[in-house]
Amino acid sequence: MTDIERLMNPRSMAVIGVTDKEGAFGQRSGANALKSHIRDRVYFVHPRRESCMGKKCYKDLKELPEIVDCILICTPAATVNPILREAGELGVKGAVVYASGFSEDHTSEGIAMEKEMEDIARTYDMKVVGPNCLGIINNVNKIMMWGLGAWIDLDTRPTGIGIIAQSGFIAANIVQLEQFNISYAVSTGNGNCFTLDECLEYLVDSDDVKVCALYLEGIKDASTFCRALEKAAKKRKPVIILKSGVSEKGAKSAASHTGNLAGSAGTYQAVFKKYGAVMVDSLEELLCTAQMYSVLNGRLPKVNGFAGINFSGGENTICADLCEKYHVKLPDLEEKTLKEMRNYIPPFAAAKNPLDGTTSLFTDREKVYNVIKAMGEDPEIGGVLVGMNVAGPRGVPQKEITSMEAMIQISDEENAPALFAVPSYEGDRDKVWREKLESHGIPVLSSAEIAYKVLGKLGEFVEFQWEKSTLAISAPDKAPTGTKCAMSEWDSKLEIQKLGIPIPAQGIAAIREDVPEVVGKMKFPVVMKVNSPDILHKTDAGGVRLNVRNSEEALEAFDSILANCRRYMPDARLDGILIQEMAPSGLEMIIGVTNDPQFGPVLLAGLGGIFVEIFKDVALCPCPVNTYEALGMLRQLKAYKMLEGYRGSRPCDLKALTDIMVKVSQYALEHKNTIAEMDLNPVFVYGEGKGAIAIDALIVAYGDR
Amino acid sequence: MTDIERLMNPRSMAVIGVTDKEGAFGQRSGANALKSHIRDRVYFVHPRRESCMGKKCYKDLKELPEIVDCILICTPAATVNPILREAGELGVKGAVVYASGFSEDHTSEGIAMEKEMEDIARTYDMKVVGPNCLGIINNVNKIMMWGLGAWIDLDTRPTGIGIIAQSGFIAANIVQLEQFNISYAVSTGNGNCFTLDECLEYLVDSDDVKVCALYLEGIKDASTFCRALEKAAKKRKPVIILKSGVSEKGAKSAASHTGNLAGSAGTYQAVFKKYGAVMVDSLEELLCTAQMYSVLNGRLPKVNGFAGINFSGGENTICADLCEKYHVKLPDLEEKTLKEMRNYIPPFAAAKNPLDGTTSLFTDREKVYNVIKAMGEDPEIGGVLVGMNVAGPRGVPQKEITSMEAMIQISDEENAPALFAVPSYEGDRDKVWREKLESHGIPVLSSAEIAYKVLGKLGEFVEFQWEKSTLAISAPDKAPTGTKCAMSEWDSKLEIQKLGIPIPAQGIAAIREDVPEVVGKMKFPVVMKVNSPDILHKTDAGGVRLNVRNSEEALEAFDSILANCRRYMPDARLDGILIQEMAPSGLEMIIGVTNDPQFGPVLLAGLGGIFVEIFKDVALCPCPVNTYEALGMLRQLKAYKMLEGYRGSRPCDLKALTDIMVKVSQYALEHKNTIAEMDLNPVFVYGEGKGAIAIDALIVAYGDR
Repeated sequence: MTDIERLMNPRSMAVIGVTDKEGAFGQRSGANALKSHIRDRVYFVHPRRESCMGKKCYKDLKELPEIVDCILICTPAATVNPILREAGELGVKGAVVYASGFSEDHTSEGIAMEKEMEDIARTYDMKVVGPNCLGIINNVNKIMMWGLGAWIDLDTRPTGIGIIAQSGFIAANIVQLEQFNISYAVSTGNGNCFTLDECLEYLVDSDDVKVCALYLEGIKDASTFCRALEKAAKKRKPVIILKSGVSEKGAKSAASHTGNLAGSAGTYQAVFKKYGAVMVDSLEELLCTAQMYSVLNGRLPKVNGFAGINFSGGENTICADLCEKYHVKLPDLEEKTLKEMRNYIPPFAAAKNPLDGTTSLFTDREKVYNVIKAMGEDPEIGGVLVGMNVAGPRGVPQKEITSMEAMIQISDEENAPALFAVPSYEGDRDKVWREKLESHGIPVLSSAEIAYKVLGKLGEFVEFQWEKSTLAISAPDKAPTGTKCAMSEWDSKLEIQKLGIPIPAQGIAAIREDVPEVVGKMKFPVVMKVNSPDILHKTDAGGVRLNVRNSEEALEAFDSILANCRRYMPDARLDGILIQEMAPSGLEMIIGVTNDPQFGPVLLAGLGGIFVEIFKDVALCPCPVNTYEALGMLRQLKAYKMLEGYRGSRPCDLKALTDIMVKVSQYALEHKNTIAEMDLNPVFVYGEGKGAIAIDALIVAYGDR
Repeated sequence: MTDIERLMNPRSMAVIGVTDKEGAFGQRSGANALKSHIRDRVYFVHPRRESCMGKKCYKDLKELPEIVDCILICTPAATVNPILREAGELGVKGAVVYASGFSEDHTSEGIAMEKEMEDIARTYDMKVVGPNCLGIINNVNKIMMWGLGAWIDLDTRPTGIGIIAQSGFIAANIVQLEQFNISYAVSTGNGNCFTLDECLEYLVDSDDVKVCALYLEGIKDASTFCRALEKAAKKRKPVIILKSGVSEKGAKSAASHTGNLAGSAGTYQAVFKKYGAVMVDSLEELLCTAQMYSVLNGRLPKVNGFAGINFSGGENTICADLCEKYHVKLPDLEEKTLKEMRNYIPPFAAAKNPLDGTTSLFTDREKVYNVIKAMGEDPEIGGVLVGMNVAGPRGVPQKEITSMEAMIQISDEENAPALFAVPSYEGDRDKVWREKLESHGIPVLSSAEIAYKVLGKLGEFVEFQWEKSTLAISAPDKAPTGTKCAMSEWDSKLEIQKLGIPIPAQGIAAIREDVPEVVGKMKFPVVMKVNSPDILHKTDAGGVRLNVRNSEEALEAFDSILANCRRYMPDARLDGILIQEMAPSGLEMIIGVTNDPQFGPVLLAGLGGIFVEIFKDVALCPCPVNTYEALGMLRQLKAYKMLEGYRGSRPCDLKALTDIMVKVSQYALEHKNTIAEMDLNPVFVYGEGKGAIAIDALIVAYGDR
């Protein structure tokens, strides 16, 4: 049994600081522990009590008849570390610490106490959940290590979702919503000892968890986190993530909540995308998505295509609109399917996707069955969406019962399509019918707008091909040391040329007399730029001359650039003039790298100039990036149309461009501990087969230069 | 009493074709009619029955003791027109026709029957709702003219929202949801006799309607529709519109549903925006928005700024993220407010907006009261958002009751801010508490994502200043006749020059010998272009020469352009060469006009080139457009940053640009019956005070040329 297993699935446990004072951690945690299936091996510990809740209290851990797997510490912050140390000495391997008052308080005392806790955990190889948490509910093995009144009936609640929340109340709220299938719920609190990352890996590994749902403010260890995502991707186990703190004010709120740095929202999103994890925006979307995957239980749509059927023309129109808005694919059905559908719908109804079922189908289960079946058998359809509220002020209406019976019949057949109930309105669904649908593998989604958003992302999940992705990041081994230094343009370009990235022929004229020799090896026209570590805005300094057409012009340009720059900044070091062939203009792209402190180098691609800066039309992917991923990045750009060939212009050389992207990402990977940023700007991309070339480059690295 | 009043609020009515056959229109409509407060003046008509539901049946309308205000026709399609005609002869002014089988069937017979119905209605000045509808519920006067089992208790249901739905089932579903305050619900069906537009005007005029909610597939009469929106804007009465059929498949679905043309989604959106109407995407959003305004009952936030308070750090972070996503303004609170808040929150909590209330406020009503009060008194705050689900599997939790009591206390005070309950999850809200909050003017919104979307749009509504808008469209008086003809560039530019829009000096050289004289009046460099009605792609034909620097080059260019064009298209009519001064380049904008068949000319503005075509970054506004609206259009553009001055570049001459926009819109208005399209592309915009100039122009009009 691993240490983590002893924490998550203990065979025995002790509640330390148990009490019967209503509302205290000791009371709630004790009462919950007694609901566990291991209740015979649950022990209460209190230094001054004989018994509590009718159960014997031991004075301390040493008195217990066995060394328990896990302890639940219900005492205040100041008392926690001594208890942990004692437990560690005894060989206890798991602990839950509820108390707050540690690093999240941002006091030096709190931070020091939490550091000490980490030390203790390391020293004794203990897995410690918390502090500032609500603990763990294990509904697979029916064990409660939970510090709040938990309205969950372990005997009846179905399993499915593994929840990790960096917010106790969010975990608690989710658990108490009866309609969700919970396998584990973990409130990680500050999460510096037992991290969210480790916890995720445990849940991904567990066969009892069909889908992981995370409320995430920030991670601790990128490598562990991404290893878990990698395993999940390979198992096709969905990981649903509500990453909060993505806004400016949200990041501040997260910081004062659990002390997590929110990090760059864009980087997180790029990491999730790389591993096919599903990013959501709200709790409702998190829950709807998680429950959907739990109910589908692996029976995903075979293709990313949906057919819709509604029993109101208006709702059918809204369905079509929302599907377009949320990128839910509604393929045109093939003629065979339409023909079959026409056998069951009235002559005035139009056989279409989505289908207005009309009132004539309201009460005819046979017809509804046949229509849905025909839709589901269309080769382009992986799932059928049925509009219904599974509710009504006077009970579930007959038209919905007709449809639900038909859906259940289909769902029980072999090779059935995935089926979904899509409500128009919020409101409690009918419990009995909801459970009936779900037990036959048919999820009841949230009201339409969230539902279609969730379905659009389900389509992406269906299309995600992990085999083609690198499923890797380049997390740095250590924080960079030294200061940031920018290489000169000349050196930066030489560096990328070594990678096999085309650059224009270039040379340096240190003195005027070098000019003829340098230009002698080049084709005119050339470009001349001052080479100086001090002059950053060369154009402003009059340090750039384009379209130099012959040697005479080159000599004149040499003099004039130097004169301009001396005037502009008299003290600047001028290391000669960089001369390069002027490349024919192509589509201007930017390829760049930033280095995220947690996830390491992240590749960026976008169309040059204001497209990046004003329209923020950029794609990110953590390095390394392979050709498939590079192409995926380009496809994410709104400007992709321009690369594809736009208004009769030829398609661009995507092969050459992605080749550069892959090489840059490889370089960044190899320099992950030192690179600060990298910019190829612009890269000119030419027509198909004509290549691409980096016109300018800048590499900034940490070092001691 | 007007005719429309006799329809919407009849003093007497007759149910024609009453029956006791369960499920038939005659049965439902009859039973509903008897629930009306005018039940003493409700008459049943059936040619062969003595009585029905214990009530006497008359043989026909003529037998009734009075000429009723309104008749409800429950008989099949083929029988409707004769009944209507008979009623018309008698002087009946209102009718509801439930039957389908008219124009929505797309059969020539159905279309003809509906045309006849329109004739009858016109001849006898009758207001006829339907066909293919469910009728009207008037909850103000407690009258049911409704063809479906309606689970609405007229005696208890509060009034507030006026609903118009071009889908019977949508109307019916909304009405049966008990939590909505309904004044009127109208299912307009095909709506060719009594249109949605007329109905909207009636509801806007009615003081018993606080907010109008529309499910709209398409309108019939733009002038009436916009007149209603204008009245609503001036009264500050919110009109909430779910315009469906905005997607390609949605438009098709709408067409086969009620035969309405969906029209251009962009144009509808622009029209709504002009009048400050609120556009929503889903039924849930429609209902949440409508009920919110109904509950607020005119007590809108005084400024567009919100403060948020949540009782879970996680939910507080999500609140901040979603507010940013949906443009809900969360201003930083002023120091005075923060200081006041700090008196009530624990020392470790951060006084911020949004605020994590922490558990210490859970049960302390006094503290919650004081914190919310302080937030609401901040000059930048118009509304306070309180995170709560108003529900729970074990009843409403104590922490929510604490907050709700505090909110109610504040809401009852003078000058209270608007208060909102924002749930995280879907689910039925507690009825008692929901009603308690709402009766004190506090709306309970939908789950967070919809809620913040609704609040973002509420902010826009608060900021909308109808006094500064034209509140007008330029609907054409008649459909255009003749064929589309494009004016030449020369003529188009002369036309816009007459409006006072700057254009470059231009001249035509019909023959080579004209060139010196034409260029003699100009400053070099000039641009030369072939002038031909046949050559549309001048550049492809070699018909354009830029940067012509002197007379000699101009003569050479003349020859070469003509030669190129003869080669390109030997039969083309060549009407000489257009010569114009080459303007210094500026920021390239496109100003255009399209002519919507219903709403008339619509002005378009966008940054030139691929910004419009690839990024679809355009703003639309129906003509006429004044300076305030023109500036509003520019502010909608993502590219607005470039007009404002970007990375140190000077701000553009917005005055000159909006001046051009206003003039173009005025021209379009004056030619609303004939104009097809208009394009000023590009318009060069220079720095502040330096003006703007239309470099090229094209006017296309319908006519007999």
